[in-house]
Amino acid sequence: MTTTFNNKLDLTFERIIDVPPHLVWRAWTEPALLKQWFCPLPWKTIDAELDVRPGGIFRSTMQSPEGQEYPNTGCYLETVKNERIVWTNAMLPGFRPAPVNAPCGDDTEFMFTAKVEFEPHGANGTKYRATVIHADEAGCQKHAAMGFEGGWGAALDQLVAMVKKGI
Amino acid sequence: MTTTFNNKLDLTFERIIDVPPHLVWRAWTEPALLKQWFCPLPWKTIDAELDVRPGGIFRSTMQSPEGQEYPNTGCYLETVKNERIVWTNAMLPGFRPAPVNAPCGDDTEFMFTAKVEFEPHGANGTKYRATVIHADEAGCQKHAAMGFEGGWGAALDQLVAMVKKGI
Repeated sequence: MTTTFNNKLDLTFERIIDVPPHLVWRAWTEPALLKQWFCPLPWKTIDAELDVRPGGIFRSTMQSPEGQEYPNTGCYLETVKNERIVWTNAMLPGFRPAPVNAPCGDDTEFMFTAKVEFEPHGANGTKYRATVIHADEAGCQKHAAMGFEGGWGAALDQLVAMVKKGI
Repeated sequence: MTTTFNNKLDLTFERIIDVPPHLVWRAWTEPALLKQWFCPLPWKTIDAELDVRPGGIFRSTMQSPEGQEYPNTGCYLETVKNERIVWTNAMLPGFRPAPVNAPCGDDTEFMFTAKVEFEPHGANGTKYRATVIHADEAGCQKHAAMGFEGGWGAALDQLVAMVKKGI
């Protein structure tokens, strides 16, 4: 994915973490691990199906503190072991375009493609970068207003804590 | 792309042609060649930009007999030299979700992912298969009504004729 970053359409954050890339990769690609960190508490990820290859399914179900379930199904676009994962919610598995459910296309505002990159940093760390790109400014603003960096950052804290406990 | 074919959402056609896969690949991936066959006459393809790799641009401009220009921009999803090309108009280059322009999402009806496959057949031929998959039945029916098989078949005839003249 070589898109030029567009600050009206895209969001990104970068952080140095003190766990190595191959364990970050495992946390992202093994369902039993993903479920432990992917959703900032008190929300939970209660189910996950990860077919880690271009066109493969990336499905997770989030659960609100009140017990309401929110399934999400997307598709991987690029996967490079220990280095990079790109996926989107604008396509279903097999690269099928996702249907627009809202009567006037409102839910396409929140279609995005996400890229996470893991680069070795020092002896045992990772330079971790997450980038989400959107179709339009409205989608980008909506994602920012939901607390993109706070949400992804809190989830990343959970990932690091999980890895440090031992996986 | 390993989607199971769904006859309510997908369209496909297969044909044996008597030119080899590596020349079919060239016809699909070199702009100067693509422009000669991609649009059934009397329509023309007057411009093409092909960055043949996942996330790369697939852009072409068609021109009606009256001179009206219709630009199309999409993105490659999978490219395997001499074998297979998968692309979509539901994403812009760099896997960016395509914006929905119609006020009520009508143009998403025509979002699709297309796959063309070239398999050696006999000494000098190709088993050629084209498949298009859609988000919903409305999009599939619209594509069928536009004459998917006739249109893609006529374009393929032009491809074969071009290759036989020598490229």
